[in-house]
Amino acid sequence: MSVIRLKNSVNIISSASVVGRHEHEGPLGELFDFWDEKDTFGMETWERAEAEMQRLALSFALSKAGISGDSLDAIFAGDLLNQCTSSSYGLLPFNAPFFGLYGACSTVVEGMILASLLIESGHFSRVADVVSSHNCAAERQYRTPIEYGALRAQTSQWTVTGAGAFILTNAGDGAEISELLPGRTIDLGINDPADMGAAMAPAAADTLVRFFRETKTSPDDYDKIITGDLGSRGFELMSELMFREGYDVSRAYTDCGMLIYDRKKSDVHSGGSGCGCSAVVFGSHFLREIEKGELGPVLLIGTGALMSPLTVAQGQNIPAVAHLVKIVKKGASL
Amino acid sequence: MSVIRLKNSVNIISSASVVGRHEHEGPLGELFDFWDEKDTFGMETWERAEAEMQRLALSFALSKAGISGDSLDAIFAGDLLNQCTSSSYGLLPFNAPFFGLYGACSTVVEGMILASLLIESGHFSRVADVVSSHNCAAERQYRTPIEYGALRAQTSQWTVTGAGAFILTNAGDGAEISELLPGRTIDLGINDPADMGAAMAPAAADTLVRFFRETKTSPDDYDKIITGDLGSRGFELMSELMFREGYDVSRAYTDCGMLIYDRKKSDVHSGGSGCGCSAVVFGSHFLREIEKGELGPVLLIGTGALMSPLTVAQGQNIPAVAHLVKIVKKGASL
Repeated sequence: MSVIRLKNSVNIISSASVVGRHEHEGPLGELFDFWDEKDTFGMETWERAEAEMQRLALSFALSKAGISGDSLDAIFAGDLLNQCTSSSYGLLPFNAPFFGLYGACSTVVEGMILASLLIESGHFSRVADVVSSHNCAAERQYRTPIEYGALRAQTSQWTVTGAGAFILTNAGDGAEISELLPGRTIDLGINDPADMGAAMAPAAADTLVRFFRETKTSPDDYDKIITGDLGSRGFELMSELMFREGYDVSRAYTDCGMLIYDRKKSDVHSGGSGCGCSAVVFGSHFLREIEKGELGPVLLIGTGALMSPLTVAQGQNIPAVAHLVKIVKKGASL
Repeated sequence: MSVIRLKNSVNIISSASVVGRHEHEGPLGELFDFWDEKDTFGMETWERAEAEMQRLALSFALSKAGISGDSLDAIFAGDLLNQCTSSSYGLLPFNAPFFGLYGACSTVVEGMILASLLIESGHFSRVADVVSSHNCAAERQYRTPIEYGALRAQTSQWTVTGAGAFILTNAGDGAEISELLPGRTIDLGINDPADMGAAMAPAAADTLVRFFRETKTSPDDYDKIITGDLGSRGFELMSELMFREGYDVSRAYTDCGMLIYDRKKSDVHSGGSGCGCSAVVFGSHFLREIEKGELGPVLLIGTGALMSPLTVAQGQNIPAVAHLVKIVKKGASL
């Protein structure tokens, strides 16, 4: 499979981000559309809170775009909870055709790719892409309930409490998706679930190297190269893997997981992670800079670790996947 | 969103089905490509067995089509296990762009729809759609490990041990997908996880009624209308819901969950269920009849219940979704 250059413009006409308190207190805190001091969003369980975050994020994104949920041709949505229930419960009110995804933390970019291709097919005009993660729901599902106070490894990451929604259309202003490259699943033998950056970095490098080679471009051609949630540990590995392949990414490369928290003040170790991490950092920060013309061509690489607690307990490695989209200010790719 | 009529032919050029012993002993047993007497497929855990079933199913489907995994432009895959690990682990060897899906038991049709639309976009030629479920892996995740011998309600269903793979292309013989309608998530207040047929029937009826109204067709226009895994309980409800909307589906309507086991000899209660149910029954039975010209236009409706054990424990209802594709012998839709 080679890089896909879209024939027709696919625009991101709006986005919205909903986060928890910890994310609001981070360096990007003022950019997010909505936050809740208790991280409960008025709900009685963490899982319902996460579903509510998806509902809020899509509501805000629709409102900014000035359209109703009924007018959506499709919703792509996913999350980290078992059976992706934040998506299926949270987005029930919108009454739109629903495609559930599971790409772990790569889901927001998987959704952008599929939404773009559905629009490219000519049958769809308006598609939403919605993802979420919630620290407390994720901790008790994947690790231990936070009330237990378990110690965390220095290579571990902090699941972001965040939901992001994007509205993609076949006409509009702002930013556009011009090229894309879906990822392959990669397993390089990493089996430590407290070191997911190391498991995901090879997948990110595989996708980015293929993209550079096929497009005959280099890191210098992009203002930013953004991975989703490799954290500082995965960031270093990714930089090294790219260097070994002949690409020095140091000028342009950044990672959403390293930007969302103030890592000096806050005990997040390697950085943020989760479906919500790349969605809220990209949507609230980089996307706005692209729209304003302050940022030229950007490569966004969603990174996902595809294990489960059970496969880890059964001694299996952690496969990973990384999907890539190129995003530019509308008209800039012509 | 209205019914999509594909502009270009999307062909199902091959399919393969891998099942367990119980499914092999059923009335369709001789039609499946491969079965394992112990349901382990040579693996040490049920979860690894399920992943191996996906690998086998896709290997057989590729072999029948005479193509290699490397030549696939994309794989859509999903299953019922937490974090969809049967798909991500089982399909690692194929080295193809990977899109993970979660549509519960509707996943095989969700994948057919997305594969068709990617081919329609003009950027993809060969796409695989792979799904699975495994009774023992599902029982211990969703209910109780089978070793506990828990009693099952008469409305409950039996998760099929089965994996199905389909290869879709932009050129070929056999059967073609000509029209499709993605489903909306529906919640009519059912909250009994031992009665999933009742939760899914309203979603199936919602999609089918919309399809009939938009295409101005009726049950008489189709040789078969096939739901994925409503079971006898959901079948009755579906028939009644359709009748109330003015459609008598009794002549053409059937359900994969009612066909896979001999329900007189075998203690499966309401019938089969799971991602694998519709995939192996459709792929091994109905698809072959369409290819041979023995069956005219068919509507296949994948049905999925989108709850998790946790949302049920938290007292929430069970939302459901149903995706529809129309499949005809190549050339018959012109």
